[in-house]
Amino acid sequence: MKWIANALVALVMTGSVHAETILATGDLGLVVERASGSLLLVDQSERKMLTRISGLGDLSHASLVYSPDQRYAYVFGRDGGLTKVDIVERKIANRVVQSGNAIGGAISDDGSLVAVSNYEPGGVRIFDADTLDLVADIPTGSKTIGLVDAPGKRFVFTLWDDGETWIADLSAGKPQITKVTGVGTNPYDALVTDDGRLYITGLFGEDGLTAIDLWDDNPKPIRVLPEYGRGQQEMPVYKMPHLEGWARAGREFVLPAVGHHQVLWINADDLTETGRTETYGQPVFAMSRPDGRQVWVNFAHPLNDTIQVIDTPSKEIIHAFKPGPAVLHMEFTPRGHEVWVSVRDAGKVMIYDTHTFEKLAEIDAESPSGIFFTSRAHKTGL
Amino acid sequence: MKWIANALVALVMTGSVHAETILATGDLGLVVERASGSLLLVDQSERKMLTRISGLGDLSHASLVYSPDQRYAYVFGRDGGLTKVDIVERKIANRVVQSGNAIGGAISDDGSLVAVSNYEPGGVRIFDADTLDLVADIPTGSKTIGLVDAPGKRFVFTLWDDGETWIADLSAGKPQITKVTGVGTNPYDALVTDDGRLYITGLFGEDGLTAIDLWDDNPKPIRVLPEYGRGQQEMPVYKMPHLEGWARAGREFVLPAVGHHQVLWINADDLTETGRTETYGQPVFAMSRPDGRQVWVNFAHPLNDTIQVIDTPSKEIIHAFKPGPAVLHMEFTPRGHEVWVSVRDAGKVMIYDTHTFEKLAEIDAESPSGIFFTSRAHKTGL
Repeated sequence: MKWIANALVALVMTGSVHAETILATGDLGLVVERASGSLLLVDQSERKMLTRISGLGDLSHASLVYSPDQRYAYVFGRDGGLTKVDIVERKIANRVVQSGNAIGGAISDDGSLVAVSNYEPGGVRIFDADTLDLVADIPTGSKTIGLVDAPGKRFVFTLWDDGETWIADLSAGKPQITKVTGVGTNPYDALVTDDGRLYITGLFGEDGLTAIDLWDDNPKPIRVLPEYGRGQQEMPVYKMPHLEGWARAGREFVLPAVGHHQVLWINADDLTETGRTETYGQPVFAMSRPDGRQVWVNFAHPLNDTIQVIDTPSKEIIHAFKPGPAVLHMEFTPRGHEVWVSVRDAGKVMIYDTHTFEKLAEIDAESPSGIFFTSRAHKTGL
Repeated sequence: MKWIANALVALVMTGSVHAETILATGDLGLVVERASGSLLLVDQSERKMLTRISGLGDLSHASLVYSPDQRYAYVFGRDGGLTKVDIVERKIANRVVQSGNAIGGAISDDGSLVAVSNYEPGGVRIFDADTLDLVADIPTGSKTIGLVDAPGKRFVFTLWDDGETWIADLSAGKPQITKVTGVGTNPYDALVTDDGRLYITGLFGEDGLTAIDLWDDNPKPIRVLPEYGRGQQEMPVYKMPHLEGWARAGREFVLPAVGHHQVLWINADDLTETGRTETYGQPVFAMSRPDGRQVWVNFAHPLNDTIQVIDTPSKEIIHAFKPGPAVLHMEFTPRGHEVWVSVRDAGKVMIYDTHTFEKLAEIDAESPSGIFFTSRAHKTGL
């Protein structure tokens, strides 16, 4: 009878594991632990770490996207690793090393395809989201940056060497490529607006930025702020800002300036400059709270211990504080009432109320960098 | 030994029930079955019904909101019933009858409070989202309509009899009320823009609409389209349009006209009219696809068998079709690649590709009306 008793115990234990994993996934998230190649699964509502998932390779510049059901994360590692993580079962579901050196990825609007942008050997590779089987290989002959999804099962990305943006339409199975030339010299990053319409590229080799209207049947490059950039200044650039930090705040976009201690405000309609706010350091991320009423800014080394909060209507700094050494990333809860902040060298993720600025909780983490909440599953271009 | 075998079987069965309920909740939804007081739990990705949940009372004008973790739905019935449904366990978790006649509700940005707007006895009641215990009772001496959430743990609602909008701030526990007077005669419905900034009220007793800027420290009523409304026309109004159908499409809002066979386009910045599109009937919902590129319109009886699709840049109708008798509601998948349509008198929910307009699937439903996907949990004002 002992085997039956053992089986019973095993089943009871299995039952209890199952009971624990009966959970909804709407308020979960993953924190990248860059030094240890691991992820923390976190719960926004409980303000807690649920578990650590290890074995993801080099996560030193990692990002991730979520499946539409918010069950799977696709993690894009710097080493070319594409790892599918099951946040319900809390384990790695699948992993392929798809290139030598990758820089970000995206998931199609229907959740069926995952695309990865590569430095080495360049180009974009597209995988079946279920199996991670290769579906399409799009060589570009160039380092490829700024990969985003767009409505209609499209991916958009840009060629560093050639200054071209390619729009790959996967709706018919085989990719149909539209090439936009003359984007500018050495585009280094890009973003798409939350409606999936405007694709905006930052340039390393010249001043200004380039916008492309993806609603246009014959999309053309549109120059934005042509007199503004790193070229006109002698200031060293400690860290290129992240364009994905761009955000719509009310009727304007907010842009971290390159090499300057400023954020720029741009009219969302005609893409002209509407103002500048002087900041404490060179901004890395300028993130809009989801309602657009505040913009939170962090800074490049050596001023990366500080966050400033800007009030959108007045464009004035209304709050500043020092969470600790090496503030790398900020992620708002979906309706913006709280913000999670990665403080790498403190080994902490810190959680703040965005209305009172009070610190609500801290979570231990090993060199935390990017924070990604599951609500991203429902957004275009994240 | 028989009891052990039975226990084993019971545990195995329990285990298998648990295994089934290990699910992510990001792509689920609920369809209101208005005649039978039941809900269908549906899976967007599978395009399938998962189960039916019954016993929700009178759902003839029902709506619902989701908890931030996307586990619980709070269903607001016409009979004053407030039902908390657990979509993971697939059952009713709690139910109170909180008034005699209710009209919609909202959940606070932190997910802790659920508010319900009442016709009889009027006013707004606020409940603990965990327990459904009454937390605050706000009598208004009026039928109360247009209840929405706003950032900062606020609820906003409007008094039909008095033409006042009240902003209730719950961030300090006890509600702090700000009253905006002079909103207009007999406001019948309201909405808040997706950034939680502009609260816009439709008026039954006079032409035009009223906007309130919730970012303003001293919010005041702003008249919108003062020469436009039902008053200037002899046409009967078959059904008042739903203002929650208002949507931002690119740089404009789209509004179903009252009593006219038109939708109106309004500049999102200055709230002036930018155009009109002639439609097949009196629009009920004018819903923007999440990317804003298309607006889908359904119509009042007797023309309620038809949907028209408007292209945003040209404001022209690019597609029209007849899903069947009594098209009541449309809900887009979060990134807009598909749309679900309730066709009440066909007893079907129909699912379409929004790019090809192809019908992808049908689901049987008893008199389906509102469709609510769990991604609403992460949006303000829904």
